[in-house]
Amino acid sequence: MILRIGYDIQFEIPSLVAMVALLNVHPSRVADLRDADELRVEPAAQTETYIDSFGNRCTRFVARKGTLRLSNSTLIYDCGVADRVSPDARELPVQELPHEILPYLYNSRYCEVDSFSTIALELFGAVPPGWSRVQAVCDWVHTRVSFGYQHARPTKTALDVFTERFGVCRDFQHLAVTLCRALNIPARYATGYLGDIGVSAAPSPMDFSAWFEAYLEDRWWTFDARHNQPRIGRVLMATGRDASDVAMTTSFGIADLRQFTVVSEQLPQEQAEARLP
Amino acid sequence: MILRIGYDIQFEIPSLVAMVALLNVHPSRVADLRDADELRVEPAAQTETYIDSFGNRCTRFVARKGTLRLSNSTLIYDCGVADRVSPDARELPVQELPHEILPYLYNSRYCEVDSFSTIALELFGAVPPGWSRVQAVCDWVHTRVSFGYQHARPTKTALDVFTERFGVCRDFQHLAVTLCRALNIPARYATGYLGDIGVSAAPSPMDFSAWFEAYLEDRWWTFDARHNQPRIGRVLMATGRDASDVAMTTSFGIADLRQFTVVSEQLPQEQAEARLP
Amino acid sequence: MILRIGYDIQFEIPSLVAMVALLNVHPSRVADLRDADELRVEPAAQTETYIDSFGNRCTRFVARKGTLRLSNSTLIYDCGVADRVSPDARELPVQELPHEILPYLYNSRYCEVDSFSTIALELFGAVPPGWSRVQAVCDWVHTRVSFGYQHARPTKTALDVFTERFGVCRDFQHLAVTLCRALNIPARYATGYLGDIGVSAAPSPMDFSAWFEAYLEDRWWTFDARHNQPRIGRVLMATGRDASDVAMTTSFGIADLRQFTVVSEQLPQEQAEARLP
Amino acid sequence: MILRIGYDIQFEIPSLVAMVALLNVHPSRVADLRDADELRVEPAAQTETYIDSFGNRCTRFVARKGTLRLSNSTLIYDCGVADRVSPDARELPVQELPHEILPYLYNSRYCEVDSFSTIALELFGAVPPGWSRVQAVCDWVHTRVSFGYQHARPTKTALDVFTERFGVCRDFQHLAVTLCRALNIPARYATGYLGDIGVSAAPSPMDFSAWFEAYLEDRWWTFDARHNQPRIGRVLMATGRDASDVAMTTSFGIADLRQFTVVSEQLPQEQAEARLP
Repeated sequence: MILRIGYDIQFEIPSLVAMVALLNVHPSRVADLRDADELRVEPAAQTETYIDSFGNRCTRFVARKGTLRLSNSTLIYDCGVADRVSPDARELPVQELPHEILPYLYNSRYCEVDSFSTIALELFGAVPPGWSRVQAVCDWVHTRVSFGYQHARPTKTALDVFTERFGVCRDFQHLAVTLCRALNIPARYATGYLGDIGVSAAPSPMDFSAWFEAYLEDRWWTFDARHNQPRIGRVLMATGRDASDVAMTTSFGIADLRQFTVVSEQLPQEQAEARLP
Repeated sequence: MILRIGYDIQFEIPSLVAMVALLNVHPSRVADLRDADELRVEPAAQTETYIDSFGNRCTRFVARKGTLRLSNSTLIYDCGVADRVSPDARELPVQELPHEILPYLYNSRYCEVDSFSTIALELFGAVPPGWSRVQAVCDWVHTRVSFGYQHARPTKTALDVFTERFGVCRDFQHLAVTLCRALNIPARYATGYLGDIGVSAAPSPMDFSAWFEAYLEDRWWTFDARHNQPRIGRVLMATGRDASDVAMTTSFGIADLRQFTVVSEQLPQEQAEARLP
Repeated sequence: MILRIGYDIQFEIPSLVAMVALLNVHPSRVADLRDADELRVEPAAQTETYIDSFGNRCTRFVARKGTLRLSNSTLIYDCGVADRVSPDARELPVQELPHEILPYLYNSRYCEVDSFSTIALELFGAVPPGWSRVQAVCDWVHTRVSFGYQHARPTKTALDVFTERFGVCRDFQHLAVTLCRALNIPARYATGYLGDIGVSAAPSPMDFSAWFEAYLEDRWWTFDARHNQPRIGRVLMATGRDASDVAMTTSFGIADLRQFTVVSEQLPQEQAEARLP
Repeated sequence: MILRIGYDIQFEIPSLVAMVALLNVHPSRVADLRDADELRVEPAAQTETYIDSFGNRCTRFVARKGTLRLSNSTLIYDCGVADRVSPDARELPVQELPHEILPYLYNSRYCEVDSFSTIALELFGAVPPGWSRVQAVCDWVHTRVSFGYQHARPTKTALDVFTERFGVCRDFQHLAVTLCRALNIPARYATGYLGDIGVSAAPSPMDFSAWFEAYLEDRWWTFDARHNQPRIGRVLMATGRDASDVAMTTSFGIADLRQFTVVSEQLPQEQAEARLP
């Protein structure tokens, strides 16, 4: 299938400010693009693109006083297959993990792994290791935390989510990531597009989505403690240890968000066909 | 001058556990070594060495049940010059920073930059940017926080230090690093050896030391909010965003520390001479 | 002047739950009432009224499954004079405070006095003690914290407000109360009605309001770090160490708030006259 | 039996400071005293005694610059019976609790009841209510938290204890108290003397001890999540919602603790006889 993806984000900028945006598809999906994936910055600014240490494509620029608009609209091929489920994927003992995977066992800003070492064992120590343990973490978080936009706040950590039991997408994933790490299962945070393909439409406007990846056997696998069901049509934009590493935009000064719309929808078959491989 | 550096660290291991150690000198100091810098693991274990994403030399191994001893003793050449002071080093606007430096402006486990954005401006907004602003941060932390081993705890964050006003080496640096980042000055945490060279001997046994680095002009500069005076004889072992990235040892399971001694002393002149360049 | 005050609060109750309400005027204002101050509970429930240890009038009852409505509408005489300003009111040294005032110097749930002891001195140590110091606290909080309903959350403490710099009524007062206590000035939290009398109408619907009281000289004085100007027409309902002591309603189980309206307005002169003393 | 109880506490006072001490036996035990229970203050200071809102006997005074010594040594009769165990004591529904008991269901400084409402149900919801549920809380805390003086810190809350799993006496009780309250069982913090009577002597020097009380049926019952066994010879000094209400000494300024010894021992039978009833 072909997906139309894009966004229109507007800020009010009180005075010149440096910004970094993670608003392109992940390098691993570039080959699937069927149109230019170009971050439009208005008014035009000189941009610099680079790959950060997590492998994400970043764009830097300086925003001038006034209204700043960041937008994009592109097409991407998607295999249309739901997140792979592999109950036999085994958990590697830490000593067998590739060393570049180890940082995904450590503490990060929103993931206080050290605070959960005993709690995680109490909750999941009896569950067989491997896929089933990660799935048990997802089930637990999905069941015990309630969704609500009014419960979002930028400083909310996994421990806050654990005690408050309310949150948005990213909060679900932060708690699940932290519990996995506390169980010595590498886990990382992922953001991207996720449209309502194959599920009933969400009642709220489209937003970017967060999910997470756990490292089992020899690769990263997609999990989603928020929706907790295999989904079709995720388009990865960035991965990192937690939301602090992969903010869609980071401004080194004030930038007031004024508008925010995201699009991620399946192109009708007749329009899609010309673009299929 | 030639420094003798080394350590003897012993753990009691209740059952097989994977460990990672950052217990070698930093790659940037390898050329100064005058003897082998070998981490001895007893009982012998198969070790794997690698460079992590921060550029530090790490060693992995699996510790068996029983007593584990990690030790080392080596010699290193040091120019004997105190930390460089460069009051003219200017602060780069964020947009001019190399992109690989940007992560050192972000939140990390012990550095809640987001919680300090206003506080930092209130405290240091009136200080001229650049070297003097970093120095003002050091002066403030050095003056307002009191040292005491009884105030150490593994989960202590910069905000805890700011409210409690007590801490050990790493706590001083975490607060200073966080304040710098909140002022848009890249800062990173550093650990290594620091003997009592050129200063009166500390009353407590030698330990590894922590300091920090701030990025000004076109390079990283050494600052130390704990001692707050230029020192001779720092031997860098590792840098990272905070102590969570550069723990001397990380065990993925239980490892009870039983003994810990560190040596860092100047070799007497007659012994040193043969090893000077 | 005569004020009409009242409220209409509705909950959805999933199963029988015990509740405590602080929804009457404070005993100190009972003599001003010009109509019955009766908390109506629908469906009717057996209520018990008592005065708690802070001197507030409380009502207990058991709410049954279904919709619960708590409402009231009464009239109260108000002198129409703004909060008294008394710059000469002096601060008592702790040793001269009545002993029943001492608890208002201590920590409470939302007021981490111990975390602010140094911060408060750094910010206000140079301000002359007494009225001017409390006013300086109000000015600081009023200026440095921004109001926004989206920033409310039930677990927000004074330290959270200090770092986040956003909050609602109660958050402003918690921070001010905590700073006062850290300066050894007794302070307590107050809630009640506050209409838009003598000021331009607030853009948001009427809510109960929070303010605080500081103990100077020989009595409690009204301060309001949120509005930070003397106001007319406060009708006190309850005081306590912080919001945890004086929640309008406390339910010992689930009670979902569904509707909430508050009225506090000046009765037109012709209607009021008959009721004036 | 007759117990000799007392203490010798010394502070260094840098400048005149107001203090409050809770260093007498609780009014409920006054009838058991067999000698004067007099808090000696040296150098002599004018003291004022009063009963606080929790029913504890408090002493206020002003300490002058220099060394301050607070001491006491008295005799008290104790029935020599261990803490009463009453498995049939039933838990009252909140609506049947006396209203003066309700505050012991609320949040307090070190007891974030709101953060534990779901956690407590998850852990203990399946345990029958009443005595067995309180005992289950004690068993859990006793088993899951490890004792260690090095883990004490003045700002440690129940949530900190829950995540860190280390603490001293007061930390065990704070966590147990908080869990009880989250289960709608009133609980309060208690401090006093507890000697090694009927148990093997503790390896550490005698200190004041903390325990807690839960309200079941129609009275408060003693529980102790630290020792978790019925003990002989508790001499109550004070109760409050948590340690913040019943600090042995509170100083409104700096007072550096320099010495601290506590005595609580059974008087030999021949000396005791003359004083038995």
